[in-house]
Amino acid sequence: MIVSLAGGVGAARFLDGLVRLLRPEELFIVGNTGDDAEIHGLHISPDLDTVVYTLAGLANAEHGWGIRGDTFHCLQSMGQLGEDTWFQLGDRDFATHLWRSNRLREGWPLSRITKEMGARLGVRSTVTPMCDEPVRTMVNTPGGELEFQEYFVKRRARDKVLGVLFRNSKEAKPAPGVLKAIGGASGIIFCPSNPIISIGPILSVPGIRKALEKRKCRSAAISPIVGGKALKGPAAGMMASMGNEVSARGVARLYQGLVDVFVLDREDRKLAPAIDALGMRTVVTNTIMTGLAQKKALARSVLKALENE
Amino acid sequence: MIVSLAGGVGAARFLDGLVRLLRPEELFIVGNTGDDAEIHGLHISPDLDTVVYTLAGLANAEHGWGIRGDTFHCLQSMGQLGEDTWFQLGDRDFATHLWRSNRLREGWPLSRITKEMGARLGVRSTVTPMCDEPVRTMVNTPGGELEFQEYFVKRRARDKVLGVLFRNSKEAKPAPGVLKAIGGASGIIFCPSNPIISIGPILSVPGIRKALEKRKCRSAAISPIVGGKALKGPAAGMMASMGNEVSARGVARLYQGLVDVFVLDREDRKLAPAIDALGMRTVVTNTIMTGLAQKKALARSVLKALENE
Repeated sequence: MIVSLAGGVGAARFLDGLVRLLRPEELFIVGNTGDDAEIHGLHISPDLDTVVYTLAGLANAEHGWGIRGDTFHCLQSMGQLGEDTWFQLGDRDFATHLWRSNRLREGWPLSRITKEMGARLGVRSTVTPMCDEPVRTMVNTPGGELEFQEYFVKRRARDKVLGVLFRNSKEAKPAPGVLKAIGGASGIIFCPSNPIISIGPILSVPGIRKALEKRKCRSAAISPIVGGKALKGPAAGMMASMGNEVSARGVARLYQGLVDVFVLDREDRKLAPAIDALGMRTVVTNTIMTGLAQKKALARSVLKALENE
Repeated sequence: MIVSLAGGVGAARFLDGLVRLLRPEELFIVGNTGDDAEIHGLHISPDLDTVVYTLAGLANAEHGWGIRGDTFHCLQSMGQLGEDTWFQLGDRDFATHLWRSNRLREGWPLSRITKEMGARLGVRSTVTPMCDEPVRTMVNTPGGELEFQEYFVKRRARDKVLGVLFRNSKEAKPAPGVLKAIGGASGIIFCPSNPIISIGPILSVPGIRKALEKRKCRSAAISPIVGGKALKGPAAGMMASMGNEVSARGVARLYQGLVDVFVLDREDRKLAPAIDALGMRTVVTNTIMTGLAQKKALARSVLKALENE
């Protein structure tokens, strides 16, 4: 079993390649729920949905979020009724959130909901939230604390980030099966996701970091930062705001003790010695996933590095 | 002020003509909520929505329900997730139900929600539910009791109707303003709606029937049955199942004591003397509303009859 820690778009792209190199059942994905939100009274799990939609072949590759070919008529009408429409939700996507919210109201834990949703959409890999409790990534800015979606989508990541807090994470427990999957994994992969607000919340759930530290297999991380820039999302700005070096090395530092192999882009090959010096083995390859071929090639490099160090 | 008691499609068509002959603010519409339903965890008020959509110029004239040009992507996706999709809900229509359900969860009464929804969609007449409490029209069939939408939409009105019950109506109170509007009305109109399951629930709310009996103005009803058939919906079958004569006269009998003027179609003119004998004045005219001209002509006849008996 390969265990992957995943955020949203970057992770989903990578997993789209990885799943084609394994039996899908051999892939166990632990998704971030720190940026979940309650919008129009519905529970939204953007990262889980991006991963599930991608593995189900439904994802909108252009946006990176939502469902391919979706329409936005419900949201338009919500606007006519005077509601905020800054969070883009398509009509088909609404079904997911409505269905999930109804199951939550019936008392289903999020892990069961996510598993069932994957099954109904034909996903054969396991996708699970990091925990069933509502952990919320809060972004501390000069104007006050913001929920992540408010910071990122509504205010377009324009605020200076003073810090990040994973609210309620101390009360959370790893979702069923997560610790067992890590303990029995043949390889662990930190997907190319934001280390602070995508992987960070997963590591904040008590027990998960320790299980990773005590891993019996190799673990690899793929840098989401290439040439000092994030491929997608607010990683670069957030890292800089919080005093981290915005580079593959900056990411590697955040993963010290958790990662054996660090995969970075050819563009950053000069950073390899410095990352080696952190006690990780580096793999330099093309990490820009412009198409399926690149996704599979990257996944192949990572799997190979997990096998023979 | 003209007070109208309204069901769904037939009522909405009639009101679409009526509202053009008055200042819209002079029209006070009391809508049936007996066939409201909870679907996908959302509160649906089919009759109120049909009336509001019609007055807002959004209605789908072809179907008689829903919003013109709506799509059904959310419902399709609900189906992919394994949910029942027998109740057709369009994407734009979903916004209404989601918005209403969120306001209900916040504790708003349905009357405030309906008023606010009308205002936000540009409706200048008052549309109010008959009451704020959840009254449910239950249809007693040989196979057991069914909620109205289950009887009508899911099972396509195929069951024999042994009786109809308005569950919880004894605990209901007329919505704010209803009794005052009836008391101060210059005319009352029973729209061409199903007398049993559209007007019946309104009359079942304690206080409303009595206020209508004590009216200080004239009241008129338009027969929804023409030539022994209902123009729309299950009125004919229901009336027959319950031992009523399926005719304009059968409808008139149900309204004895509440109605001064009974409007029936030219096709049924032979029934006029028998309805006169029930103590009502009959108006024979064209009641088939094929277009706006016919809607307005019918409304004009009704207003005229309310003025000079």
